[in-house]
This record gives sequence, C-alpha cells and structure tokens, in this order.
Amino acid sequence: MKRITWLSLVSGLTLAGLAAYLAPASGQAATAPSLLKTIPAGYRDWRFISIAREEAPLDDIRVILGNDAALRAYRKGTLPFPEGTMIARLAYSYDASPENNQAFGRSQSYVAGQPKNGVQFMVKDSKKYAATGGWGYAQFNDGKPVDEPMLATCFPCHQAVQARDFVFTRYAQ
Amino acid sequence: MKRITWLSLVSGLTLAGLAAYLAPASGQAATAPSLLKTIPAGYRDWRFISIAREEAPLDDIRVILGNDAALRAYRKGTLPFPEGTMIARLAYSYDASPENNQAFGRSQSYVAGQPKNGVQFMVKDSKKYAATGGWGYAQFNDGKPVDEPMLATCFPCHQAVQARDFVFTRYAQ
Repeated sequence: MKRITWLSLVSGLTLAGLAAYLAPASGQAATAPSLLKTIPAGYRDWRFISIAREEAPLDDIRVILGNDAALRAYRKGTLPFPEGTMIARLAYSYDASPENNQAFGRSQSYVAGQPKNGVQFMVKDSKKYAATGGWGYAQFNDGKPVDEPMLATCFPCHQAVQARDFVFTRYAQ
Repeated sequence: MKRITWLSLVSGLTLAGLAAYLAPASGQAATAPSLLKTIPAGYRDWRFISIAREEAPLDDIRVILGNDAALRAYRKGTLPFPEGTMIARLAYSYDASPENNQAFGRSQSYVAGQPKNGVQFMVKDSKKYAATGGWGYAQFNDGKPVDEPMLATCFPCHQAVQARDFVFTRYAQ
C-alpha cells in the first residue's frame, strides 16, 4: 500500500515503469534519488498550481503547490524547470459534506478532510539528482521521510512525461 | 443556471434561503451586497485554504485561496475574520486524465481543466457590507462582475454558517 501511495505528483507507477526499475537496462533508472531528510520549509505557503481527485485505491483530493521558481516557470512555460524549483503535493481524504449538501439542497459536495497519503515533493537540482532527471523525490508521512526503496519507484513513472521535464501536473489558469 | 452557479464558496443557496431573500421578514436579508467592480489584485497568488469537488449541476473541482489576513485568521482560529480578509473560490472543469490513468494503470484520475463557474470572492468590510454580515460577495465571469440581483442570493445561504462568520470552507491542514 505504501508503494501505491507514492504513485504520484498526480502521477503513477506503471507496471512497465516498475519493471524498468527492477530490471534496468542501463542501471541509471535504478539509482534511487537522494532523500530529502527534512520537509522543505514553508511549503504550506507555496502558491497554487492545480488540483486533482484520485479515486480508490488512493481515494483522495489533492492540491499541487509550487515555490516562486515553480510558479514563474509554469507561467512562462519555461522548460526545463530552473534549479531550485520545488513542487509539493498535499492530499486529503475525500469527504462528503452534509453541511454543504444541505445548503445546496442535494448531495453533490465533497471537501478535503484529514491529510492522507503523505506529502510529496519534487526538488530540482540537476547535479545532485542527475541520475533521476534532475529531480529529487520525497514523501513525508506524518512528518517522517519514507524509505529510499519506495522513492526509487518515482522516477521510472515520471519518465512518461519527460517532455514536460518529468512533471505531470499542468498549471490551472 | 447563472443563479445556480453562484451557489458557493463551497456553499449553496437553499430553497429556504431563497425564500428568505425573496420575502424577508426584516428587509435586511434582501439588501444586495455592494459589488466589487474589479477583481481583487493578485488573487491567483493567494495561499491555499482548501479544495472541494461539486458534482452536477455545478460539476467542477475547486480551490479556495485566501489573502494574508485570511490565512492568519484561519490558522489562529480567529472569529470573526478581521477587516480586509479576502477569500477566493476558483473552479475548473472536472476532467478525466488519460495521461494519469495510463501512469496509474487504471481509470482513477481527474484533474482541473478549464476555468468554470466564474471566480468568486468574499471580502470583509464590516462597515461597507454591514447589511450582509460584514462580507461583500462578488463573482466574475470572464473577468466581468455579475449582476447585483444574482449576488443578492449569496448572503441568505451563507447565514447557515453564521457561527463561523458566514464562511463555509474549513482550513485544510
């Protein structure tokens, strides 16, 4: 389940990607990204990039936030993203809202509940994370970084969007 | 449909609320809030409060952002919200993501598409908007403010959460 949890910055781990990781041709894809040992400071104050909903098994509603470098790049269409770019994915339980439904007069409303599926990050440092496309990947569950083997599944999946510098999420206008 | 569109800052217009507006006992509830003539500057850079999904007929996925005053109040639990508080609701079409689904290996992913259902605001000014609980309400469709009669439906609905200073959205940790 932990492995499934890490399937995203609105992204995923394909079986093909997993196979590529488990039996890499070059060995490079198998290089686990360096872990971030501490959560990037102030990420809850980063700016809004986009939102998404993941149905089961993840079953969450999520927001993607970015630091200033990320926002500038998104808005200018800069690719690859510049050094220092940081992107965060915060996910929450997908909770029906009786209060909202009563106000609307019908059952239609779902809101963010408790934090769920950890907080994930992509951090751009082309030298430090050269083996994984210039991005370091991290996930924190209850403030604690997850193990390196779990993070090693990130890069194979994100290779699906190499043309967008390995970033799945598009900017919401 | 326009009337339905304005049902929220993750909120709604109840039939009871509409009735209260159409035939108010005191007349106060019928006082339309003053319109904001221009969109508050920089709202796309405000910080993240929470997210929600509204099924049909609204059929969108939405984010609630707030200015510094809003965030400070949310985090401290300050009620009522201080003067100058501004809250924005941005909504987007709820689009299945074939790209994400392929990465996940299953159909589960929905992302924000094009802007939808306008951009809505609540602005706290206890004197200016005294007739509507101290909040001014606004919606902009394609950058243009909607008509006053439409906005007059906001306050009756938001009275359902008077105990939270008329704000439906709760802060996502």
